[in-house]
Amino acid sequence: MDPQSLAQSLTPSKVHAAHALIKPYIHRTPLLTNKTLNGIASTPQTPDALKGTPYEGQTPAAPTIRFFFKCENLQRIGAFKARGAFHALLRLIEERGEEEVRRMGVVTHSSGNHAQALALASSTLNIPSYIVMPSISTTSKIEGTKAYATKVVFSGSTSTEREAVVAEVQSQTDAILIPPYDDFNIICGQGTTGLEIEEQYLELLAQNPQLSVHGSSGSGLDAVITPIGGGGLNAGVATFFSDKKTRVFGAEPSFEGADDCRRGLEAGERVTSVKSLTIGDGLRTPVGLLNWEVISDKKKVEGVFAVTEEQIKAAMRLVLERMKVVVEPSAVVGLAVCLFNEEFRRIVEREGGEEGWDIGIVFSGGNTTVEAIGKLFS
Amino acid sequence: MDPQSLAQSLTPSKVHAAHALIKPYIHRTPLLTNKTLNGIASTPQTPDALKGTPYEGQTPAAPTIRFFFKCENLQRIGAFKARGAFHALLRLIEERGEEEVRRMGVVTHSSGNHAQALALASSTLNIPSYIVMPSISTTSKIEGTKAYATKVVFSGSTSTEREAVVAEVQSQTDAILIPPYDDFNIICGQGTTGLEIEEQYLELLAQNPQLSVHGSSGSGLDAVITPIGGGGLNAGVATFFSDKKTRVFGAEPSFEGADDCRRGLEAGERVTSVKSLTIGDGLRTPVGLLNWEVISDKKKVEGVFAVTEEQIKAAMRLVLERMKVVVEPSAVVGLAVCLFNEEFRRIVEREGGEEGWDIGIVFSGGNTTVEAIGKLFS
Repeated sequence: MDPQSLAQSLTPSKVHAAHALIKPYIHRTPLLTNKTLNGIASTPQTPDALKGTPYEGQTPAAPTIRFFFKCENLQRIGAFKARGAFHALLRLIEERGEEEVRRMGVVTHSSGNHAQALALASSTLNIPSYIVMPSISTTSKIEGTKAYATKVVFSGSTSTEREAVVAEVQSQTDAILIPPYDDFNIICGQGTTGLEIEEQYLELLAQNPQLSVHGSSGSGLDAVITPIGGGGLNAGVATFFSDKKTRVFGAEPSFEGADDCRRGLEAGERVTSVKSLTIGDGLRTPVGLLNWEVISDKKKVEGVFAVTEEQIKAAMRLVLERMKVVVEPSAVVGLAVCLFNEEFRRIVEREGGEEGWDIGIVFSGGNTTVEAIGKLFS
Repeated sequence: MDPQSLAQSLTPSKVHAAHALIKPYIHRTPLLTNKTLNGIASTPQTPDALKGTPYEGQTPAAPTIRFFFKCENLQRIGAFKARGAFHALLRLIEERGEEEVRRMGVVTHSSGNHAQALALASSTLNIPSYIVMPSISTTSKIEGTKAYATKVVFSGSTSTEREAVVAEVQSQTDAILIPPYDDFNIICGQGTTGLEIEEQYLELLAQNPQLSVHGSSGSGLDAVITPIGGGGLNAGVATFFSDKKTRVFGAEPSFEGADDCRRGLEAGERVTSVKSLTIGDGLRTPVGLLNWEVISDKKKVEGVFAVTEEQIKAAMRLVLERMKVVVEPSAVVGLAVCLFNEEFRRIVEREGGEEGWDIGIVFSGGNTTVEAIGKLFS
């Protein structure tokens, strides 16, 4: 099926079905709030912070923001990727039968979190797994993958280099490729993050109506923002919310052109290659074909915004020091957009007005090391 | 009243009363479990790890341990100290009347967490506060205190130096001293940590009996271990559990003699002065007089154990990288004892047998910075 038609069949009910299937295998990660971060986000940036941007000299935006943080850094293997991996593998077994999948095994390539996720899902379901990882991946991600995978094979760090090694593995085995993001079942699996955000937000407000001016009115979040690397998480979440009032946004690092999705939307054409070494190491890949079909649909994703490396680091510092929660740099690009991206903040000010917005933030993962944190802030 | 008699009147009902009073002002912090850490704790140490210890050449202990982590790093101001500070101040207002306390103000000295806690409690209850802090306190703790305190005054880092500056403040104002740990009401306030651990443990097992071999039998934890600096937390928790089967233990850093409580117990006499620059900066003070009366009572606290700086760092790494939760070094000495102290591990193996122990660990605080983490692990 061509990507356009396939994208049409990505509906909220598919995400519900995925959730029913993977629920026994994943954590329902907590949805946290934090007054300090709400306060910072609801304070205009200083005029200094806008120097050198298109907003220099203008009045800084004054949005009112209440955050709801979906902590997928506390997910199994430390990232949302467990959702897609379990879903894709369970569907594969449904389609081809356990015996055949067990005989052939599965293969994938990933900068780390999908690698660990597929290794975990495979070992849980007794399927052999071959995992291709860039040799420059974070040590913790390599170790985490080795703990479960049948075999780890190293490659260069660009998509092209990784895909070449996958082809090599496939030429030597019968292993079936489970793509890291550009795949119908992966998208539905990651979309379950959105389903849980909505469920937990409504539960939370029912018990603590003081957390939002909206109170326990039973209406959903105003917006959800997720990181975009390959785009599986964003496309999945956008699929879930496609029949609801909740707006979905995406966030990317701008460093060395890692904001390929944002640039692609601007140019009206998908950017197919990225060579960035942004600190958001989960976001160094171009958006996949199927994901692009979803994300470039204005009715599904309202906009994609980019942040600098310094803004990512500032957001990461706030999460570690104020929320006391460990996140990897990729995980906080959505928060960084809400705190520092003037274009986005103006939208919230304009559309949210005095009431402001309740914004769901997906902390996509927490796989880092104390040494890596030390290096970032030394 | 002399410390002995005062210690006698520290009863579980006093902790219940404290809880009723402070509940509206504090967070009921989560009680977390973690399979990875249970697995590590339930695996014998390598023979290499015992080299240079009294256990060199012996078979490493093989205890079975299930952890229940009380996350006071997620408490208001990032540490359990909020409990004692609110309790002491609310009792003071009860005794002297709001008007008088407001006119006189309060003063204290602290390496940081009690400073922040009293500043928060005072600003919440509209009482002026003068806070004496060692000038070498962590930046985040100084900043956190300045945000709420009426005035911050700096001092040297030993208890003697701090107390001199407190006396100076008192000679210039009418401020009433709220001691950081050696105080009846502070102890009762910190003891509410123990009360919540028990409540939450029973709730958790009722919903998830698979978390322990004890299942939802309604019986309490086998043991609780807390850090000991001035001893307020440990004495408070021991007070709460003094009429229950749950054993209470204490943990200290051994570096430069910061294990004053353990040494005092060994010698049969309280050590009154400590000059240690252990990375557990909340644990650099000697145990207070009243706290000593509780902790040296074998019926209340079964034992105090010490760990090295390297063991504290190893425990801190595990908590940050595996649990994805930010803790300060002082917070993990209890966990470090469970993972690395052979003497303690032998007790658990012997007394816990095949069933093992459910151990409550108090993560006492999370006030650190990304720079401090970087320095520790560079």
